Amino acid sequence: MAEPATATQAAAPAVALLKDELDIVIPTIRNLDFLEMWRPFFQPYHLIIVQDGDPSKTIKVPEGFDYELYNRNDINRILGPKASCISFKDSACRCFGYMVSKKKYIFTIDDDCFVAKDPSGKAINALEQHIKNLLSPSTPFFFNTLYDPYREGADFVRGYPFSLREGVPTAVSHGLWLNIPDYDAPTQLVKPLERNTRYVDAVLTIPKGTLFPMCGMNLAFNRQLIGQAMYFGLMGDGQPIGRYDDMWAGWCTKVICDHLGLGVKTGLPYIYHSKASNPFVNLRKEYKGIYWQEEIIPFFQQAALPKDCTTVQKCYIELAKQVKEKLSKVDPYFDKLADAMVTWIEAWDELNPTGAAVPNGKAK
Amino acid sequence: MAEPATATQAAAPAVALLKDELDIVIPTIRNLDFLEMWRPFFQPYHLIIVQDGDPSKTIKVPEGFDYELYNRNDINRILGPKASCISFKDSACRCFGYMVSKKKYIFTIDDDCFVAKDPSGKAINALEQHIKNLLSPSTPFFFNTLYDPYREGADFVRGYPFSLREGVPTAVSHGLWLNIPDYDAPTQLVKPLERNTRYVDAVLTIPKGTLFPMCGMNLAFNRQLIGQAMYFGLMGDGQPIGRYDDMWAGWCTKVICDHLGLGVKTGLPYIYHSKASNPFVNLRKEYKGIYWQEEIIPFFQQAALPKDCTTVQKCYIELAKQVKEKLSKVDPYFDKLADAMVTWIEAWDELNPTGAAVPNGKAK
Repeated sequence: MAEPATATQAAAPAVALLKDELDIVIPTIRNLDFLEMWRPFFQPYHLIIVQDGDPSKTIKVPEGFDYELYNRNDINRILGPKASCISFKDSACRCFGYMVSKKKYIFTIDDDCFVAKDPSGKAINALEQHIKNLLSPSTPFFFNTLYDPYREGADFVRGYPFSLREGVPTAVSHGLWLNIPDYDAPTQLVKPLERNTRYVDAVLTIPKGTLFPMCGMNLAFNRQLIGQAMYFGLMGDGQPIGRYDDMWAGWCTKVICDHLGLGVKTGLPYIYHSKASNPFVNLRKEYKGIYWQEEIIPFFQQAALPKDCTTVQKCYIELAKQVKEKLSKVDPYFDKLADAMVTWIEAWDELNPTGAAVPNGKAK
Repeated sequence: MAEPATATQAAAPAVALLKDELDIVIPTIRNLDFLEMWRPFFQPYHLIIVQDGDPSKTIKVPEGFDYELYNRNDINRILGPKASCISFKDSACRCFGYMVSKKKYIFTIDDDCFVAKDPSGKAINALEQHIKNLLSPSTPFFFNTLYDPYREGADFVRGYPFSLREGVPTAVSHGLWLNIPDYDAPTQLVKPLERNTRYVDAVLTIPKGTLFPMCGMNLAFNRQLIGQAMYFGLMGDGQPIGRYDDMWAGWCTKVICDHLGLGVKTGLPYIYHSKASNPFVNLRKEYKGIYWQEEIIPFFQQAALPKDCTTVQKCYIELAKQVKEKLSKVDPYFDKLADAMVTWIEAWDELNPTGAAVPNGKAK
């Protein structure tokens, strides 16, 4: 586990699950050489690449991948004034890819994530495990001590209510990271050499009513069930904060999943995270978030959605209203963010009318 | 992992942690040969053996162990009329051992549990891991995706509120089982050959507000923090139900821990569970519980304790009151159980006055 996998070809499955129902969304500022390693696993799928930063730069994608690529000019052209809700110079821009996808499922991965090895040395097909997580139910109402009861060799333990054993649909599959753990800047500074070498062979449902720090590095979700909540906020260029894009999406998503009776799983699959970002740069991006989250998290813990919020859109618009009411006093930024949340939903609905059309990107 | 460990001697620690602050409680009806395998780990500790069934039978304890043993006659003599709260012909009788102990910590284990091996083949010192779990804080208010943040090589991930990183005191450490999983009778009947071979290298806090099925087979707790809630109910002889003793204790304990801001951990350590109990016998013991738990669990999920319940005793008496009010309509059994809960607290207080005396057992 100290090294990424090298021979991934052998681990490729005979059949690519959900091949025509899943898009892989990758935000990037560089050539996508990292895809070479993922080729056996990703090549059957369609990629949506969201190019961040200078749109005149050409991003090279290895031969043989089926992809569409959007740069800032594309985003501006497609969304017009509503493009303001999509972050620039921050990987938060990835959520544009969720919006233009027409598939039922999304897998998103960072371009510094490589194929990890399981303890037996076998290359881990992260996408396949995410799909397994998404296709089996979640159990948010009661904790199962042997973890995911739907996994082979496991089940519900004694004392688990039978009425809850059908579970609920899984909306989110949150994967983890070997090697460089997803630490904040202060922890990075304090423990510069810490590496995650512990392979925990488990998938579990995050219980109802419990929030978690959702990392966008290795994440899959059912776009049809929860896509509209996966807005990565206003980060990066012109914003007072960065590195809270996925956290924001995670808080909103979890509150809405809990309200709608959908499940969020975490655990397997692992990817190999190769490169620690600069902790000094991170500290500059994060420091307001580190302070603000002490108020944001209680806000989300107490957020209640009314019964008539029966769709993700309605829930999200209601959350935007509550953010404006209750978080604007923390900082005027949240007023702007609440507006952007509404814009995001408007843009989503525009691109995804009933009887959705083909997205207007640079299809290869 | 398909076999229990054999050479345990080598894995024994140089120093037995909490040697004078922890009792090992074992309910049994047979000679305790299983202790031979645990000798390197248990011998430094004091054992409290609660003999179930025929008190005229002699239970053999291997040479060299420091123990006290209580049979039904002892329990009747020590508790007098209050002995009615201690179950007979059911491993629920183990909670008598919690009551007579004068130590800060309890580890309880079944006599069909052997030493398991970790994936490297090393014998697992379950007690040592429980102690580690109990001595490090819990994190019930927010989920940490890299599991126990206090373990070596782990920490809080990005997005975890800094104000919550001190954690709260851990009251309970719930260990798991390799080989025979803790399934209910219907699952045993449907999957007679299923064995748990998955070693999940994790310890995690069960979030606040989430109930779990607590198994008494491999369990440790801080008796000073939560002992009075660890009542294993009325089971076995003369009762309409069995195999729900630990579940009952777990529901009560979790509700009280959540109210008092204490933590419950689950995961490591594993023991090797050797013998599946008879599923037909289990079905007879369990069937009412399987039905009743559909009402009991919502009751506990909704149970709220008033602010003036500031001690475990007060919480437990209040819970007993609520059980009487709300569960007696499910079955008259709960009326009796609510009374027994009160008797249990009275007996506890009698045996544990301020400035506690030495317990009155057959000390070796």
